[in-house]
Amino acid sequence: MLIAESALREFTENIFTAMGCSKAHAQLATDVLLKADLRGIDSHGVARLNGYVRLWEKQRINTNPDIKIIHQTATTATVDGDAGLGLIVAPFAMQVAIEKAEQYGSGWVAVRNSNHFGIAGYHALMAVEKDMIGFAMTNASPLVSPTFSSERLLGTNPMCYAFPAGKYPPLIVDMATSAAANGKLEIAQRLGKRVPEGWIQDKEGNVTTDPHALKSGGALLPLGGDFDHGSHKGFGLGATVDILSAVLSGANYGPWVPPFVAFLEPPTDPVGLGIGHFVGAMRVDGFRPADEFKAHLDNWINRFKSSTTIDPNQKVIIPGEPELEAEKDRKANGIPLVDAVVDDLNVLAEKFGIKKLST
Amino acid sequence: MLIAESALREFTENIFTAMGCSKAHAQLATDVLLKADLRGIDSHGVARLNGYVRLWEKQRINTNPDIKIIHQTATTATVDGDAGLGLIVAPFAMQVAIEKAEQYGSGWVAVRNSNHFGIAGYHALMAVEKDMIGFAMTNASPLVSPTFSSERLLGTNPMCYAFPAGKYPPLIVDMATSAAANGKLEIAQRLGKRVPEGWIQDKEGNVTTDPHALKSGGALLPLGGDFDHGSHKGFGLGATVDILSAVLSGANYGPWVPPFVAFLEPPTDPVGLGIGHFVGAMRVDGFRPADEFKAHLDNWINRFKSSTTIDPNQKVIIPGEPELEAEKDRKANGIPLVDAVVDDLNVLAEKFGIKKLST
Repeated sequence: MLIAESALREFTENIFTAMGCSKAHAQLATDVLLKADLRGIDSHGVARLNGYVRLWEKQRINTNPDIKIIHQTATTATVDGDAGLGLIVAPFAMQVAIEKAEQYGSGWVAVRNSNHFGIAGYHALMAVEKDMIGFAMTNASPLVSPTFSSERLLGTNPMCYAFPAGKYPPLIVDMATSAAANGKLEIAQRLGKRVPEGWIQDKEGNVTTDPHALKSGGALLPLGGDFDHGSHKGFGLGATVDILSAVLSGANYGPWVPPFVAFLEPPTDPVGLGIGHFVGAMRVDGFRPADEFKAHLDNWINRFKSSTTIDPNQKVIIPGEPELEAEKDRKANGIPLVDAVVDDLNVLAEKFGIKKLST
Repeated sequence: MLIAESALREFTENIFTAMGCSKAHAQLATDVLLKADLRGIDSHGVARLNGYVRLWEKQRINTNPDIKIIHQTATTATVDGDAGLGLIVAPFAMQVAIEKAEQYGSGWVAVRNSNHFGIAGYHALMAVEKDMIGFAMTNASPLVSPTFSSERLLGTNPMCYAFPAGKYPPLIVDMATSAAANGKLEIAQRLGKRVPEGWIQDKEGNVTTDPHALKSGGALLPLGGDFDHGSHKGFGLGATVDILSAVLSGANYGPWVPPFVAFLEPPTDPVGLGIGHFVGAMRVDGFRPADEFKAHLDNWINRFKSSTTIDPNQKVIIPGEPELEAEKDRKANGIPLVDAVVDDLNVLAEKFGIKKLST
């Protein structure tokens, strides 16, 4: 089913408003979710709306949060999200980082007591619009085992770096630090397909290609897959995200991160508040004139795009390019939603007494 | 051959002094190199001394550099290394970052016109000693192909994040963004062994396990190995390092990075000056009291160290742990050098008329 952006936007705003969000918050949260749907990152868009509602029903999301800075220096700050939607809390934090960068060249904000923040790219791009380099990362509920472990101790812990270019669109590296994101596993589950070796292990830690292994106690593997292929590096990156997002902010880390699903209870022995994020912004002209940087980044992109390829039909993909192409297409032609998601959303519509989605 | 740290230190200082370094610079460069040898990262220690000498003989390294800040804000700066040893230039840049962090909470320095900077961990650890989080990365001469490409366009571009802990030693993530570092390939070449699939490709971009493929026009692969296993993420990380280190600073990037070996000439159409680094420091107490952070990082480390493992004999390795164990051992028992390295060093000793290494 193809839904026009405007219709999906109105629907989503209505849901957030029905949950008790202010108009401004409902619009912002919708903007973050829609950005994922537009950019083809379907696992992080409106498909998650039902999950947010369930967590709110369990009072694990506060739709009227008092988000505030609890500690700061000229260029660093810690923000408490008051259990708000990460979709609201992370842009608040990024705004703080941007204001510090405007004044002092750079700004860095650690966030505690938050929830799932959507796609990291949304937040990092806020900085890019100001000719800054944007950084955004978050920890997440534990699904990934460190190298050699059979326990789930880390989330897929994404990190994002975004750079403003000149004639090209921004270069955006936005990646889970696991070998594969959970969304890819869900696709394989739906299609009844095996997954490549190196994505997951079963609950004893054995190599498996069964995408259902995660649901039966297995774990996702860090980027690299196994030790021989550098999974200790993927583990190190996931650890870095966890430490910057949570150990630095006072959020929960490692296995203490609260689950994103309402049917699993948070650990009873928390080590912090909610989940954590870490965002930052650096003014490009804190290093060299912005137009010089952009001209050279264009040259970089151009050189990599025109690289000799192994298969003449498969060009080198510049980080962020596929998402941009999806965004162009979906803005023009509508956002494809699978039936299960539409049904799910219309159950929510009924619950809140708002207008259902239709083609 | 086991050499005592003090003997190797004296020898290395003598070489740098003979190259025209000031006493302070010779001591600092030696300290950076020795740190690699002590920590078991043999590919980045005194084994490289001969390479530095050859580049100096070709006048591609300046041993009397005028290193200076050419652009800055309160918390950002660009440093020009005047073609100096990266071993000298990077600590200068990190010192600038630390001083900015002391005053404003964080400091970030991009570096152009530099050379190979040794191990990233040395520089990041300078911040950790001040209860700061340290960041260090560098681009490097091109050996890695982006996903889908058969050209070498990126270096192994390492990134390092270092965090101060309490009762535990610092947690240090220090990793090449390629699947395997060049040093591992050289070991396989020496032993006549095949390497795992996913480390390298031949010059047409075919999968290969021949460690000599790199020398015959092949390329190292980004972390992840192939697209199915997330090599686009490794490529994205390598790109991030290249952009922060060189596009931001005004150094050469991508295929324009000058080779680290003297027998290959730098490109005749440079896009910047020398190679680039990017370093940073953030005060932990810019976010929360340092003792709180350290207590929680200790708790993090403790939880991950005590994780249930797949093989009871293989514990989870905390990033930085193996290097620390090597350092303890080698400080006490001496640094093992293979004969080829000792011979190489003694040829240098003869060239400069200084005392040779002996057991």
